[in-house]
Amino acid sequence: MVTKDPNSTGITLVLGGARSGKSAFAESLMPDTGDLVYIATAEPRDDEMSARIATHQKRRGSLWNTIEAPLELSKALKATNGKPALLDCLTLWLSNLMEAGRDIDQETKTLTACLQDLPGPVVIVSNEVGQGIVPDNALARQFRDHAGRLNQAVAAVADRVYFVTAGIPTQLK
Amino acid sequence: MVTKDPNSTGITLVLGGARSGKSAFAESLMPDTGDLVYIATAEPRDDEMSARIATHQKRRGSLWNTIEAPLELSKALKATNGKPALLDCLTLWLSNLMEAGRDIDQETKTLTACLQDLPGPVVIVSNEVGQGIVPDNALARQFRDHAGRLNQAVAAVADRVYFVTAGIPTQLK
Amino acid sequence: MVTKDPNSTGITLVLGGARSGKSAFAESLMPDTGDLVYIATAEPRDDEMSARIATHQKRRGSLWNTIEAPLELSKALKATNGKPALLDCLTLWLSNLMEAGRDIDQETKTLTACLQDLPGPVVIVSNEVGQGIVPDNALARQFRDHAGRLNQAVAAVADRVYFVTAGIPTQLK
Repeated sequence: MVTKDPNSTGITLVLGGARSGKSAFAESLMPDTGDLVYIATAEPRDDEMSARIATHQKRRGSLWNTIEAPLELSKALKATNGKPALLDCLTLWLSNLMEAGRDIDQETKTLTACLQDLPGPVVIVSNEVGQGIVPDNALARQFRDHAGRLNQAVAAVADRVYFVTAGIPTQLK
Repeated sequence: MVTKDPNSTGITLVLGGARSGKSAFAESLMPDTGDLVYIATAEPRDDEMSARIATHQKRRGSLWNTIEAPLELSKALKATNGKPALLDCLTLWLSNLMEAGRDIDQETKTLTACLQDLPGPVVIVSNEVGQGIVPDNALARQFRDHAGRLNQAVAAVADRVYFVTAGIPTQLK
Repeated sequence: MVTKDPNSTGITLVLGGARSGKSAFAESLMPDTGDLVYIATAEPRDDEMSARIATHQKRRGSLWNTIEAPLELSKALKATNGKPALLDCLTLWLSNLMEAGRDIDQETKTLTACLQDLPGPVVIVSNEVGQGIVPDNALARQFRDHAGRLNQAVAAVADRVYFVTAGIPTQLK
Protein backbone atom coordinates (compact mmCIF):
# COMPACT_ATOMS: atom_id res chain seq x y z
CA MET A 1 0.00 0.00 0.00
CA VAL A 2 1.26 3.42 -0.92
CA THR A 3 0.56 6.20 1.57
CA LYS A 4 0.40 9.79 0.49
CA ASP A 5 2.95 12.02 2.12
CA PRO A 6 1.98 15.70 1.90
CA ASN A 7 5.47 16.69 3.00
CA SER A 8 7.16 14.52 0.45
CA THR A 9 9.80 16.27 -1.55
CA GLY A 10 11.96 15.52 -4.48
CA ILE A 11 11.36 13.71 -7.75
CA THR A 12 8.86 10.88 -8.14
CA LEU A 13 8.66 8.98 -11.45
CA VAL A 14 5.46 7.04 -12.22
CA LEU A 15 5.85 4.56 -15.08
CA GLY A 16 3.21 2.31 -16.63
CA GLY A 17 1.68 1.01 -19.82
CA ALA A 18 -1.28 2.49 -21.69
CA ARG A 19 -4.45 2.70 -19.54
CA SER A 20 -2.58 1.32 -16.55
CA GLY A 21 -3.96 3.95 -14.18
CA LYS A 22 -0.61 5.74 -13.92
CA SER A 23 -2.06 9.28 -14.20
CA ALA A 24 -4.70 8.62 -11.52
CA PHE A 25 -2.03 7.13 -9.23
CA ALA A 26 0.31 10.09 -9.86
CA GLU A 27 -2.50 12.51 -8.95
CA SER A 28 -3.18 10.55 -5.76
CA LEU A 29 0.39 11.29 -4.64
CA MET A 30 -0.22 15.06 -4.73
CA PRO A 31 -1.19 17.07 -1.63
CA ASP A 32 -4.95 17.63 -1.08
CA THR A 33 -4.62 21.35 -0.42
CA GLY A 34 -2.59 24.32 -1.49
CA ASP A 35 -1.43 25.59 -4.85
CA LEU A 36 -0.72 22.80 -7.29
CA VAL A 37 0.73 23.05 -10.77
CA TYR A 38 -0.20 20.75 -13.61
CA ILE A 39 2.34 20.69 -16.45
CA ALA A 40 0.65 19.36 -19.58
CA THR A 41 2.76 18.21 -22.51
CA ALA A 42 -0.30 17.17 -24.55
CA GLU A 43 -1.66 19.28 -27.38
CA PRO A 44 -5.32 18.70 -28.35
CA ARG A 45 -4.68 17.89 -32.03
CA ASP A 46 -7.61 15.58 -32.73
CA ASP A 47 -10.89 14.46 -31.13
CA GLU A 48 -9.32 11.38 -29.52
CA MET A 49 -6.69 13.52 -27.80
CA SER A 50 -9.18 16.25 -26.80
CA ALA A 51 -11.43 13.68 -25.14
CA ARG A 52 -8.50 12.21 -23.22
CA ILE A 53 -7.36 15.64 -21.99
CA ALA A 54 -10.94 16.52 -20.93
CA THR A 55 -11.24 13.28 -18.93
CA HIS A 56 -8.01 14.00 -17.07
CA GLN A 57 -9.00 17.63 -16.37
CA LYS A 58 -12.40 16.58 -15.01
CA ARG A 59 -10.75 14.11 -12.63
CA ARG A 60 -8.28 16.69 -11.33
CA GLY A 61 -10.90 19.36 -10.61
CA SER A 62 -10.51 23.10 -11.07
CA LEU A 63 -8.04 23.92 -8.28
CA TRP A 64 -4.99 23.33 -10.42
CA ASN A 65 -2.93 25.89 -12.23
CA THR A 66 -2.13 24.42 -15.64
CA ILE A 67 1.01 25.20 -17.63
CA GLU A 68 1.05 23.94 -21.19
CA ALA A 69 4.53 22.80 -22.19
CA PRO A 70 4.58 20.76 -25.39
CA LEU A 71 8.30 21.55 -25.85
CA GLU A 72 9.75 23.95 -23.22
CA LEU A 73 9.56 21.64 -20.24
CA SER A 74 12.46 23.02 -18.21
CA LYS A 75 11.03 26.53 -18.51
CA ALA A 76 7.68 25.25 -17.21
CA LEU A 77 9.34 23.40 -14.33
CA LYS A 78 11.25 26.53 -13.25
CA ALA A 79 7.99 28.53 -13.38
CA THR A 80 6.49 26.30 -10.63
CA ASN A 81 8.54 28.33 -8.10
CA GLY A 82 8.63 25.54 -5.54
CA LYS A 83 4.94 24.63 -5.72
CA PRO A 84 4.16 20.90 -5.97
CA ALA A 85 3.90 19.97 -9.65
CA LEU A 86 2.51 17.05 -11.63
CA LEU A 87 4.06 16.56 -15.09
CA ASP A 88 1.99 14.40 -17.50
CA CYS A 89 3.69 13.03 -19.52
CA LEU A 90 7.29 12.55 -20.63
CA THR A 91 6.53 10.33 -23.63
CA LEU A 92 4.24 12.92 -25.24
CA TRP A 93 6.94 15.55 -24.69
CA LEU A 94 9.43 13.23 -26.42
CA SER A 95 7.02 12.81 -29.32
CA ASN A 96 6.69 16.60 -29.65
CA LEU A 97 10.49 17.03 -29.49
CA MET A 98 11.07 14.46 -32.23
CA GLU A 99 8.48 16.11 -34.46
CA ALA A 100 10.17 19.48 -33.91
CA GLY A 101 13.56 18.00 -34.85
CA ARG A 102 15.18 18.67 -31.46
CA ASP A 103 18.37 16.94 -30.20
CA ILE A 104 16.91 14.37 -27.79
CA ASP A 105 20.14 13.54 -25.92
CA GLN A 106 20.72 17.24 -25.25
CA GLU A 107 17.08 17.82 -24.17
CA THR A 108 17.33 14.82 -21.81
CA LYS A 109 20.47 16.27 -20.17
CA THR A 110 18.86 19.71 -19.81
CA LEU A 111 15.77 18.15 -18.22
CA THR A 112 17.63 16.02 -15.67
CA ALA A 113 19.84 19.00 -14.69
CA CYS A 114 16.71 21.15 -14.25
CA LEU A 115 14.96 18.46 -12.16
CA GLN A 116 17.92 18.21 -9.78
CA ASP A 117 17.83 21.98 -9.18
CA LEU A 118 14.06 22.17 -8.63
CA PRO A 119 13.05 23.67 -5.23
CA GLY A 120 9.63 21.95 -5.03
CA PRO A 121 8.41 18.37 -5.32
CA VAL A 122 7.47 17.01 -8.73
CA VAL A 123 5.62 13.85 -9.79
CA ILE A 124 6.43 12.80 -13.37
CA VAL A 125 4.30 10.42 -15.47
CA SER A 126 5.85 8.42 -18.29
CA ASN A 127 4.94 5.45 -20.49
CA GLU A 128 6.68 2.11 -20.76
CA VAL A 129 6.71 1.43 -24.53
CA GLY A 130 9.55 -1.08 -24.95
CA GLN A 131 8.03 -4.42 -23.89
CA GLY A 132 6.26 -5.33 -27.12
CA ILE A 133 7.55 -6.67 -30.41
CA VAL A 134 10.15 -4.60 -32.34
CA PRO A 135 8.19 -2.06 -34.45
CA ASP A 136 8.31 -2.36 -38.24
CA ASN A 137 9.20 1.24 -39.03
CA ALA A 138 12.44 3.02 -38.17
CA LEU A 139 10.77 6.10 -36.63
CA ALA A 140 8.85 3.98 -34.10
CA ARG A 141 12.08 2.15 -33.22
CA GLN A 142 13.84 5.49 -32.71
CA PHE A 143 10.99 6.69 -30.50
CA ARG A 144 11.14 3.49 -28.47
CA ASP A 145 14.91 3.83 -28.04
CA HIS A 146 14.69 7.49 -27.00
CA ALA A 147 11.81 6.75 -24.60
CA GLY A 148 13.78 3.97 -22.93
CA ARG A 149 16.86 6.16 -22.48
CA LEU A 150 14.78 9.11 -21.25
CA ASN A 151 13.03 6.92 -18.65
CA GLN A 152 16.41 5.56 -17.52
CA ALA A 153 17.86 9.08 -17.21
CA VAL A 154 14.92 10.43 -15.17
CA ALA A 155 14.74 7.27 -13.03
CA ALA A 156 18.44 7.73 -12.22
CA VAL A 157 17.84 11.19 -10.68
CA ALA A 158 14.45 10.30 -9.16
CA ASP A 159 14.03 9.75 -5.42
CA ARG A 160 11.18 7.29 -5.97
CA VAL A 161 10.11 5.24 -9.01
CA TYR A 162 6.76 3.41 -9.27
CA PHE A 163 5.47 1.05 -11.95
CA VAL A 164 1.68 0.88 -12.26
CA THR A 165 -0.02 -2.29 -13.58
CA ALA A 166 -3.82 -2.56 -13.81
CA GLY A 167 -4.12 0.33 -11.36
CA ILE A 168 -1.76 -1.24 -8.80
CA PRO A 169 1.52 0.59 -8.06
CA THR A 170 4.76 -1.28 -7.36
CA GLN A 171 7.70 0.70 -5.98
CA LEU A 172 10.87 0.00 -7.98
CA LYS A 173 13.08 2.54 -6.19
CA MET B 1 6.98 -18.96 -3.84
CA VAL B 2 3.24 -19.21 -4.35
CA THR B 3 1.49 -21.99 -2.42
CA LYS B 4 -1.78 -23.41 -3.61
CA ASP B 5 -4.60 -22.97 -1.15
CA PRO B 6 -7.43 -25.44 -1.79
CA ASN B 7 -9.70 -23.48 0.51
CA SER B 8 -8.94 -20.19 -1.15
CA THR B 9 -11.98 -18.15 -2.04
CA GLY B 10 -12.72 -15.01 -3.87
CA ILE B 11 -11.38 -13.51 -7.06
CA THR B 12 -7.82 -14.03 -8.31
CA LEU B 13 -6.59 -12.13 -11.37
CA VAL B 14 -3.58 -13.50 -13.27
CA LEU B 15 -2.02 -11.00 -15.69
CA GLY B 16 0.88 -11.51 -18.06
CA GLY B 17 2.21 -11.01 -21.56
CA ALA B 18 1.96 -13.43 -24.46
CA ARG B 19 3.53 -16.85 -23.71
CA SER B 20 4.37 -15.74 -20.19
CA GLY B 21 3.05 -18.94 -18.62
CA LYS B 22 0.00 -17.18 -17.14
CA SER B 23 -2.50 -19.93 -18.06
CA ALA B 24 -0.32 -22.70 -16.61
CA PHE B 25 0.16 -20.66 -13.42
CA ALA B 26 -3.58 -19.96 -13.18
CA GLU B 27 -4.31 -23.69 -13.51
CA SER B 28 -1.76 -24.43 -10.77
CA LEU B 29 -3.84 -22.30 -8.38
CA MET B 30 -6.90 -24.54 -8.81
CA PRO B 31 -7.73 -27.38 -6.39
CA ASP B 32 -6.48 -30.88 -7.34
CA THR B 33 -9.77 -32.61 -6.74
CA GLY B 34 -13.49 -31.99 -7.01
CA ASP B 35 -15.65 -30.48 -9.70
CA LEU B 36 -13.89 -27.71 -11.60
CA VAL B 37 -15.32 -25.43 -14.24
CA TYR B 38 -13.33 -24.08 -17.16
CA ILE B 39 -14.87 -21.00 -18.79
CA ALA B 40 -13.43 -20.63 -22.29
CA THR B 41 -13.82 -17.34 -24.14
CA ALA B 42 -11.87 -18.60 -27.18
CA GLU B 43 -13.57 -19.70 -30.36
CA PRO B 44 -11.58 -22.02 -32.67
CA ARG B 45 -11.75 -19.85 -35.80
CA ASP B 46 -8.51 -20.87 -37.48
CA ASP B 47 -5.80 -23.55 -37.24
CA GLU B 48 -3.54 -21.39 -35.05
CA MET B 49 -6.33 -20.90 -32.50
CA SER B 50 -7.47 -24.54 -32.63
CA ALA B 51 -3.94 -25.74 -31.93
CA ARG B 52 -3.66 -23.36 -28.96
CA ILE B 53 -6.99 -24.50 -27.48
CA ALA B 54 -6.00 -28.17 -27.92
CA THR B 55 -2.68 -27.58 -26.10
CA HIS B 56 -4.47 -25.96 -23.15
CA GLN B 57 -7.12 -28.74 -22.99
CA LYS B 58 -4.45 -31.46 -23.04
CA ARG B 59 -2.63 -29.81 -20.12
CA ARG B 60 -5.80 -29.49 -18.05
CA GLY B 61 -6.85 -33.13 -18.50
CA SER B 62 -10.39 -34.42 -18.89
CA LEU B 63 -11.78 -33.81 -15.37
CA TRP B 64 -12.93 -30.30 -16.13
CA ASN B 65 -16.40 -29.20 -17.09
CA THR B 66 -16.02 -26.67 -19.89
CA ILE B 67 -18.43 -23.80 -20.53
CA GLU B 68 -17.90 -21.90 -23.77
CA ALA B 69 -18.61 -18.22 -23.30
CA PRO B 70 -17.34 -16.08 -26.17
CA LEU B 71 -19.77 -13.28 -25.17
CA GLU B 72 -22.12 -14.20 -22.27
CA LEU B 73 -19.51 -14.29 -19.52
CA SER B 74 -21.73 -13.34 -16.57
CA LYS B 75 -24.22 -16.07 -17.50
CA ALA B 76 -21.39 -18.61 -17.57
CA LEU B 77 -20.04 -17.40 -14.20
CA LYS B 78 -23.47 -17.74 -12.57
CA ALA B 79 -23.78 -21.26 -14.02
CA THR B 80 -20.74 -22.38 -12.00
CA ASN B 81 -23.01 -22.59 -8.93
CA GLY B 82 -20.21 -22.09 -6.43
CA LYS B 83 -17.77 -24.58 -7.99
CA PRO B 84 -14.20 -23.34 -8.43
CA ALA B 85 -13.84 -21.80 -11.89
CA LEU B 86 -10.97 -20.84 -14.17
CA LEU B 87 -11.78 -18.16 -16.74
CA ASP B 88 -9.35 -17.94 -19.69
CA CYS B 89 -9.19 -15.20 -20.86
CA LEU B 90 -10.59 -11.67 -20.48
CA THR B 91 -8.75 -10.17 -23.47
CA LEU B 92 -10.26 -12.67 -25.92
CA TRP B 93 -13.69 -11.94 -24.46
CA LEU B 94 -13.05 -8.22 -25.01
CA SER B 95 -12.06 -8.93 -28.61
CA ASN B 96 -15.31 -10.89 -29.16
CA LEU B 97 -17.36 -8.08 -27.55
CA MET B 98 -15.79 -5.42 -29.76
CA GLU B 99 -16.42 -7.50 -32.88
CA ALA B 100 -20.06 -7.93 -31.83
CA GLY B 101 -20.44 -4.17 -31.34
CA ARG B 102 -21.21 -4.37 -27.60
CA ASP B 103 -20.92 -1.43 -25.14
CA ILE B 104 -17.62 -2.26 -23.41
CA ASP B 105 -18.03 0.07 -20.41
CA GLN B 106 -21.46 -1.45 -19.67
CA GLU B 107 -20.15 -5.02 -20.11
CA THR B 108 -17.27 -4.25 -17.76
CA LYS B 109 -19.68 -3.00 -15.07
CA THR B 110 -21.93 -6.04 -15.48
CA LEU B 111 -18.92 -8.35 -15.15
CA THR B 112 -17.46 -6.74 -12.02
CA ALA B 113 -20.93 -6.74 -10.35
CA CYS B 114 -21.35 -10.42 -11.23
CA LEU B 115 -17.87 -11.30 -9.89
CA GLN B 116 -18.58 -9.65 -6.54
CA ASP B 117 -21.77 -11.72 -6.14
CA LEU B 118 -20.17 -15.03 -7.10
CA PRO B 119 -20.49 -17.75 -4.40
CA GLY B 120 -17.43 -19.77 -5.48
CA PRO B 121 -13.77 -18.95 -6.12
CA VAL B 122 -12.69 -17.86 -9.58
CA VAL B 123 -9.25 -17.47 -11.18
CA ILE B 124 -9.26 -15.06 -14.12
CA VAL B 125 -6.56 -14.90 -16.81
CA SER B 126 -5.93 -11.69 -18.75
CA ASN B 127 -3.25 -10.24 -21.04
CA GLU B 128 -1.14 -7.15 -20.52
CA VAL B 129 -1.14 -5.47 -23.97
CA GLY B 130 -0.27 -1.84 -23.16
CA GLN B 131 3.52 -1.84 -22.69
CA GLY B 132 4.60 -1.69 -26.33
CA ILE B 133 4.70 1.14 -28.82
CA VAL B 134 1.40 2.94 -29.62
CA PRO B 135 -0.30 0.90 -32.42
CA ASP B 136 -0.70 2.50 -35.86
CA ASN B 137 -4.37 1.79 -36.36
CA ALA B 138 -7.26 3.24 -34.34
CA LEU B 139 -8.99 -0.12 -33.68
CA ALA B 140 -5.86 -1.55 -32.04
CA ARG B 141 -5.56 1.62 -29.91
CA GLN B 142 -9.21 1.24 -28.85
CA PHE B 143 -8.65 -2.40 -27.97
CA ARG B 144 -5.56 -1.49 -25.93
CA ASP B 145 -7.48 1.25 -24.08
CA HIS B 146 -10.44 -1.04 -23.33
CA ALA B 147 -8.12 -3.87 -22.22
CA GLY B 148 -6.29 -1.55 -19.83
CA ARG B 149 -9.53 -0.28 -18.29
CA LEU B 150 -11.00 -3.79 -18.05
CA ASN B 151 -7.88 -5.08 -16.27
CA GLN B 152 -8.01 -2.10 -13.87
CA ALA B 153 -11.71 -2.71 -13.12
CA VAL B 154 -11.25 -6.45 -12.44
CA ALA B 155 -8.05 -5.84 -10.44
CA ALA B 156 -9.99 -3.37 -8.26
CA VAL B 157 -12.53 -6.03 -7.18
CA ALA B 158 -9.99 -8.90 -7.07
CA ASP B 159 -8.72 -10.31 -3.77
CA ARG B 160 -5.37 -11.22 -5.32
CA VAL B 161 -3.56 -10.05 -8.46
CA TYR B 162 -0.50 -11.78 -9.94
CA PHE B 163 1.74 -10.76 -12.83
CA VAL B 164 3.54 -13.63 -14.59
CA THR B 165 6.88 -13.02 -16.36
CA ALA B 166 8.79 -15.88 -18.03
CA GLY B 167 6.75 -18.36 -15.98
CA ILE B 168 7.49 -16.60 -12.67
CA PRO B 169 4.52 -15.09 -10.76
CA THR B 170 4.83 -11.85 -8.80
CA GLN B 171 1.99 -10.91 -6.45
CA LEU B 172 0.85 -7.31 -7.03
CA LYS B 173 -2.08 -7.37 -4.61
CA MET C 1 19.91 -2.91 -4.20
CA VAL C 2 21.72 -5.67 -6.06
CA THR C 3 25.23 -6.42 -4.86
CA LYS C 4 27.77 -7.95 -7.19
CA ASP C 5 29.04 -11.30 -6.04
CA PRO C 6 32.37 -12.16 -7.68
CA ASN C 7 32.05 -15.74 -6.46
CA SER C 8 28.55 -16.12 -7.79
CA THR C 9 28.03 -19.21 -9.87
CA GLY C 10 25.30 -20.67 -11.96
CA ILE C 11 22.87 -19.17 -14.42
CA THR C 12 21.54 -15.61 -14.17
CA LEU C 13 18.82 -14.42 -16.58
CA VAL C 14 18.39 -10.67 -17.10
CA LEU C 15 15.10 -9.75 -18.80
CA GLY C 16 13.87 -6.32 -19.84
CA GLY C 17 12.27 -4.26 -22.58
CA ALA C 18 14.06 -2.27 -25.27
CA ARG C 19 16.51 0.32 -23.87
CA SER C 20 15.70 -0.75 -20.33
CA GLY C 21 19.37 -0.86 -19.30
CA LYS C 22 19.41 -4.67 -19.16
CA SER C 23 22.80 -5.06 -20.91
CA ALA C 24 24.49 -2.51 -18.62
CA PHE C 25 22.98 -4.22 -15.55
CA ALA C 26 24.07 -7.65 -16.83
CA GLU C 27 27.63 -6.36 -17.29
CA SER C 28 27.58 -4.93 -13.76
CA LEU C 29 27.02 -8.46 -12.43
CA MET C 30 30.29 -9.72 -13.94
CA PRO C 31 33.55 -9.90 -11.96
CA ASP C 32 35.90 -6.89 -12.24
CA THR C 33 39.00 -8.94 -12.90
CA GLY C 34 40.07 -12.11 -14.62
CA ASP C 35 39.30 -13.64 -17.98
CA LEU C 36 35.78 -12.86 -19.13
CA VAL C 37 33.98 -14.15 -22.19
CA TYR C 38 31.44 -12.14 -24.15
CA ILE C 39 29.15 -14.26 -26.33
CA ALA C 40 27.63 -12.02 -29.01
CA THR C 41 24.62 -13.24 -30.97
CA ALA C 42 24.34 -9.99 -32.97
CA GLU C 43 25.57 -9.71 -36.53
CA PRO C 44 26.34 -6.19 -37.81
CA ARG C 45 23.97 -6.25 -40.81
CA ASP C 46 23.19 -2.53 -41.06
CA ASP C 47 24.38 0.81 -39.69
CA GLU C 48 21.79 0.83 -36.87
CA MET C 49 23.02 -2.56 -35.63
CA SER C 50 26.71 -1.68 -36.09
CA ALA C 51 26.28 1.47 -34.00
CA ARG C 52 24.54 -0.50 -31.24
CA ILE C 53 27.29 -3.15 -31.17
CA ALA C 54 30.00 -0.45 -31.07
CA THR C 55 28.28 1.28 -28.11
CA HIS C 56 28.14 -1.98 -26.14
CA GLN C 57 31.79 -2.84 -26.94
CA LYS C 58 32.98 0.60 -25.87
CA ARG C 59 31.18 0.24 -22.52
CA ARG C 60 32.66 -3.20 -21.87
CA GLY C 61 36.25 -2.16 -22.57
CA SER C 62 38.92 -4.25 -24.24
CA LEU C 63 39.58 -6.90 -21.57
CA TRP C 64 36.89 -9.24 -22.85
CA ASN C 65 37.34 -12.22 -25.12
CA THR C 66 34.47 -12.11 -27.61
CA ILE C 67 32.94 -15.18 -29.24
CA GLU C 68 30.51 -14.50 -32.07
CA ALA C 69 27.67 -16.99 -32.04
CA PRO C 70 24.76 -15.96 -34.25
CA LEU C 71 23.54 -19.61 -34.36
CA GLU C 72 25.85 -22.09 -32.57
CA LEU C 73 25.22 -20.93 -29.03
CA SER C 74 25.82 -24.21 -27.20
CA LYS C 75 29.19 -24.62 -28.94
CA ALA C 76 30.15 -21.09 -27.82
CA LEU C 77 29.03 -21.76 -24.24
CA LYS C 78 31.12 -24.96 -24.06
CA ALA C 79 34.13 -23.03 -25.41
CA THR C 80 34.07 -20.76 -22.32
CA ASN C 81 35.77 -23.59 -20.37
CA GLY C 82 34.48 -22.45 -17.00
CA LYS C 83 35.32 -18.77 -17.42
CA PRO C 84 32.55 -16.30 -16.47
CA ALA C 85 30.50 -15.50 -19.56
CA LEU C 86 28.01 -12.84 -20.58
CA LEU C 87 25.59 -13.85 -23.36
CA ASP C 88 23.84 -10.94 -25.12
CA CYS C 89 21.18 -11.71 -26.23
CA LEU C 90 18.76 -14.63 -26.52
CA THR C 91 16.15 -12.81 -28.61
CA LEU C 92 18.63 -11.96 -31.37
CA TRP C 93 19.76 -15.60 -31.39
CA LEU C 94 16.10 -16.64 -31.76
CA SER C 95 15.71 -14.24 -34.65
CA ASN C 96 18.80 -15.73 -36.36
CA LEU C 97 17.50 -19.29 -35.77
CA MET C 98 14.11 -18.49 -37.29
CA GLU C 99 15.73 -16.92 -40.33
CA ALA C 100 17.91 -20.02 -40.76
CA GLY C 101 14.83 -22.27 -40.57
CA ARG C 102 15.95 -24.13 -37.42
CA ASP C 103 13.62 -26.16 -35.15
CA ILE C 104 13.15 -23.73 -32.23
CA ASP C 105 11.77 -26.23 -29.71
CA GLN C 106 14.76 -28.53 -30.31
CA GLU C 107 17.24 -25.62 -30.10
CA THR C 108 15.64 -24.50 -26.83
CA LYS C 109 16.04 -28.00 -25.33
CA THR C 110 19.67 -28.21 -26.49
CA LEU C 111 20.41 -24.80 -24.95
CA THR C 112 18.85 -25.52 -21.54
CA ALA C 113 20.65 -28.90 -21.36
CA CYS C 114 23.95 -27.19 -22.22
CA LEU C 115 23.37 -24.45 -19.60
CA GLN C 116 22.77 -27.01 -16.85
CA ASP C 117 26.09 -28.74 -17.66
CA LEU C 118 28.13 -25.54 -17.82
CA PRO C 119 31.11 -25.46 -15.36
CA GLY C 120 31.33 -21.64 -15.10
CA PRO C 121 28.88 -18.85 -14.31
CA VAL C 122 26.88 -17.26 -17.10
CA VAL C 123 24.76 -14.11 -17.25
CA ILE C 124 22.16 -14.22 -20.05
CA VAL C 125 20.38 -11.15 -21.48
CA SER C 126 16.97 -11.48 -23.12
CA ASN C 127 14.13 -9.20 -24.24
CA GLU C 128 10.55 -9.14 -23.02
CA VAL C 129 8.53 -8.72 -26.25
CA GLY C 130 5.06 -10.03 -25.29
CA GLN C 131 3.47 -7.15 -23.40
CA GLY C 132 2.26 -5.06 -26.33
CA ILE C 133 -0.66 -5.44 -28.68
CA VAL C 134 -0.90 -8.66 -30.76
CA PRO C 135 1.21 -8.07 -33.92
CA ASP C 136 -0.56 -7.93 -37.29
CA ASN C 137 1.64 -10.37 -39.16
CA ALA C 138 1.97 -14.09 -38.46
CA LEU C 139 5.79 -14.13 -38.41
CA ALA C 140 5.92 -11.51 -35.65
CA ARG C 141 3.33 -13.54 -33.67
CA GLN C 142 5.46 -16.69 -34.09
CA PHE C 143 8.55 -14.81 -32.95
CA ARG C 144 6.69 -13.49 -29.91
CA ASP C 145 5.44 -16.97 -29.03
CA HIS C 146 8.90 -18.54 -29.41
CA ALA C 147 10.52 -15.72 -27.40
CA GLY C 148 8.03 -16.21 -24.57
CA ARG C 149 8.61 -19.97 -24.44
CA LEU C 150 12.39 -19.56 -24.68
CA ASN C 151 12.42 -17.07 -21.78
CA GLN C 152 10.25 -19.43 -19.72
CA ALA C 153 12.55 -22.39 -20.45
CA VAL C 154 15.74 -20.50 -19.54
CA ALA C 155 14.10 -18.92 -16.46
CA ALA C 156 13.13 -22.43 -15.29
CA VAL C 157 16.78 -23.58 -15.21
CA ALA C 158 18.19 -20.22 -14.02
CA ASP C 159 19.39 -19.71 -10.45
CA ARG C 160 18.44 -16.03 -10.53
CA VAL C 161 16.10 -14.00 -12.77
CA TYR C 162 16.02 -10.19 -12.89
CA PHE C 163 13.66 -7.84 -14.72
CA VAL C 164 15.10 -4.41 -15.56
CA THR C 165 12.79 -1.38 -15.92
CA ALA C 166 14.19 2.10 -16.64
CA GLY C 167 17.60 0.90 -15.45
CA ILE C 168 16.26 -0.51 -12.16
CA PRO C 169 16.56 -4.28 -11.60
CA THR C 170 13.88 -6.27 -9.78
CA GLN C 171 14.69 -9.83 -8.74
CA LEU C 172 11.93 -12.24 -9.82
CA LYS C 173 13.68 -15.44 -8.73
